[in-house]
Amino acid sequence: MVSDHSPSDPSPQQPLTDLSAAEVAQVHARQTAAYDALRAQGLGLDLTRGKPSTEQLDLSDGLLSLPSTTRDRSGADVRNYGGLQGIAELREIFADLLGIDADRIVAGGSSSLTMMRDVLVDLMLKGAVDGERPWAAEEKVTFVCPVPGYDRHFTLLSWLGIDTVTVPMLEDGPDVDAVARLVADDPSIKGMWLVPTYANPTGSVVTQEVAERLVSMPTAAPDFKILWDNAYALHHLTSAETKSADVLSLAAVAGNPHRPVVFASTSKITYAGAGVAFLAGSPETVAWYLGHLGKGSIGPDKLNQLRHAEFFGSADGVRAHMAEHRRIIAPKFAEVDRVLTERLGGTGVASWTRPEGGYFVSLDVLPGTASRVIELAARAGVALTPAGSAFPDSHDPDDQNIRLAPTFPPLADVTPAMEAVTTCVLLAATEKLTGA
Amino acid sequence: MVSDHSPSDPSPQQPLTDLSAAEVAQVHARQTAAYDALRAQGLGLDLTRGKPSTEQLDLSDGLLSLPSTTRDRSGADVRNYGGLQGIAELREIFADLLGIDADRIVAGGSSSLTMMRDVLVDLMLKGAVDGERPWAAEEKVTFVCPVPGYDRHFTLLSWLGIDTVTVPMLEDGPDVDAVARLVADDPSIKGMWLVPTYANPTGSVVTQEVAERLVSMPTAAPDFKILWDNAYALHHLTSAETKSADVLSLAAVAGNPHRPVVFASTSKITYAGAGVAFLAGSPETVAWYLGHLGKGSIGPDKLNQLRHAEFFGSADGVRAHMAEHRRIIAPKFAEVDRVLTERLGGTGVASWTRPEGGYFVSLDVLPGTASRVIELAARAGVALTPAGSAFPDSHDPDDQNIRLAPTFPPLADVTPAMEAVTTCVLLAATEKLTGA
Repeated sequence: MVSDHSPSDPSPQQPLTDLSAAEVAQVHARQTAAYDALRAQGLGLDLTRGKPSTEQLDLSDGLLSLPSTTRDRSGADVRNYGGLQGIAELREIFADLLGIDADRIVAGGSSSLTMMRDVLVDLMLKGAVDGERPWAAEEKVTFVCPVPGYDRHFTLLSWLGIDTVTVPMLEDGPDVDAVARLVADDPSIKGMWLVPTYANPTGSVVTQEVAERLVSMPTAAPDFKILWDNAYALHHLTSAETKSADVLSLAAVAGNPHRPVVFASTSKITYAGAGVAFLAGSPETVAWYLGHLGKGSIGPDKLNQLRHAEFFGSADGVRAHMAEHRRIIAPKFAEVDRVLTERLGGTGVASWTRPEGGYFVSLDVLPGTASRVIELAARAGVALTPAGSAFPDSHDPDDQNIRLAPTFPPLADVTPAMEAVTTCVLLAATEKLTGA
Repeated sequence: MVSDHSPSDPSPQQPLTDLSAAEVAQVHARQTAAYDALRAQGLGLDLTRGKPSTEQLDLSDGLLSLPSTTRDRSGADVRNYGGLQGIAELREIFADLLGIDADRIVAGGSSSLTMMRDVLVDLMLKGAVDGERPWAAEEKVTFVCPVPGYDRHFTLLSWLGIDTVTVPMLEDGPDVDAVARLVADDPSIKGMWLVPTYANPTGSVVTQEVAERLVSMPTAAPDFKILWDNAYALHHLTSAETKSADVLSLAAVAGNPHRPVVFASTSKITYAGAGVAFLAGSPETVAWYLGHLGKGSIGPDKLNQLRHAEFFGSADGVRAHMAEHRRIIAPKFAEVDRVLTERLGGTGVASWTRPEGGYFVSLDVLPGTASRVIELAARAGVALTPAGSAFPDSHDPDDQNIRLAPTFPPLADVTPAMEAVTTCVLLAATEKLTGA
């Protein structure tokens, strides 16, 4: 019974839609009071972006006094120009971690997003390694976007005038039947985004089977690309340390070796602003990328790469380092789930993910209320990612998805922030159900 | 008389063209002998690229244990995401040095060449801040290229399908009458390259008067751009420390505030591979650049920026640091000039620059012999920049220009390398004059 719940324990624990109009009105009144109390607290909390916390960044402060030498293993002075592909010792560490040959990996600057932009620009201006002409010469270019997904992926497409078509992101990856249908007939569909492991924001992990279908499905466009943004490959939240599908080998076996372009970075391993980003692909893809990259670069910051190689020492060094991250952030995810479960469990107006890795929880609220929840939260001093941001053009057709990013705030802040969110979710839901 | 000169002092010191055929044949025979002796030495020397030497890089090794803090002056954690324009304290130091307001400067990653590429890509794909459409939508885009110039500038144009038209680079900058004539009538001419101070490779310095004309000349293209690559702004070789023209103020006064886009970097101040690059322009240009940059970046490596800001402390810190560079490299330039003067002075088959700053000496040899000189030098173990590389499409119409870069080799290597070059210059000249 809803009347059992005080404002400090506001979850009705039974579907709101099963309640009578009068009972819903009661819940609404109680949530309104709870919300007023919330506003009076004058919170200033932020769950907007997937940023590492200060405590996480501190884990990498050994970098600040590295490197201890200025020559890489080959004897090259990392302070000088050159070495476009990045230093071998760091590529080897990530080759091990990503299951990709080191010579198929490029170690670049501090941003994998910049590498993605460069790849898209090269595709638009120059065409793919297996393409016939620049994409910009096509009448139309379209990307398949699993949703909810990563806002910056969609922004890049919109910036380049690339159209989007969405497919649902399921637990085992994108709805591969839907993808296969789309790409089979329409040659304007030139590629798709994918965060294969612990996806942003759903936490989905692309299975071996789904990966196999994606790299082998017939595509009307001969130069179809999968931009495989493996940003969270190593970012496990549980001891079930999922291994990403070996997309490059699968693609080669399927006869489509140039289809995937793989991205990764240490932005959420060492420093979000001063890490090292990686690109990988078929030998031809790597040569294609470096050929264009070399027009505007004489080499990456190899000093920072050597700094990272020394800091980690080996792939196991990275694994041990990631365990430290997990120690810090897993309790925050657990707290998000605890508050959501206690306050929204059984209400029928919210469902959410319990990711085994990555940086996000994807919260679905009563359809039509996500933007209202975000607005209410903002007024109560809790910043959430803008409504719809996990969809192309920021358009969530059902207005129900909210991306929660609990890593940045201290654990002590996650609790009040999430309590506030649940109050807003219930208030928005009862507003809608009562027509208030 | 040529017969006065032994192979170890092979300069005829009088115009080869004034000699009789028999005398030229004598010189040729002697240079052939000198060249054979040279090859027998098995040299392995390199004057190809404008790279700082190890001794120069060592000057900045204070960077290796910086920064001492991880927060910038504003309190932002430089290890985390954000801060697209770069940290204020470093922008202020370079604002002072470049004579540009700090809020009109963007501090970026480690490469100004990458910033130039990004600007050109943005112009092609999105159009200028004062333009009507993307440059890629024009039938033709052409750039004015002062020659000899910087090979990587020309490569970028060729990569983007931008045509080139050359004008001579004079001592006080590009032939501004020629530039003004070209741009006045042809709306396809959308921009020009310029290294305004101690130009690559001529050492030319654009005067205030030339700068004024360039920013005020009428252009048929309303969105004409001057890509003002001030790579050597602070790289003085003498106590006459030339001050670059204040191109942004001049352009604003002339009513063309968006015409110049300024680039600079610390690649040849601190580390060539791990410095900080800068872009500057009108407030609208900066907003335009950041707007596009932000599509593919969440912020630059601010940690490296803070590292640099701490290392320098102030603009005067940079100036003192540049004096140390001068101490190391000025003797190398003096040695280049000494050998050239002693061995080629008065021969009439070579002229060269005596730069007051920058990284290069531009050597003009007997027309039609530059590629032969470079070929001869290569066979003798002295690497020179490929023939024609200071011209668009690597085409030096007179086959006479050779770019010498004496900074990287130790001083002790500059002497034999330059002696070898002079032998090759004389041999190629006498080959040509004798029809050998």
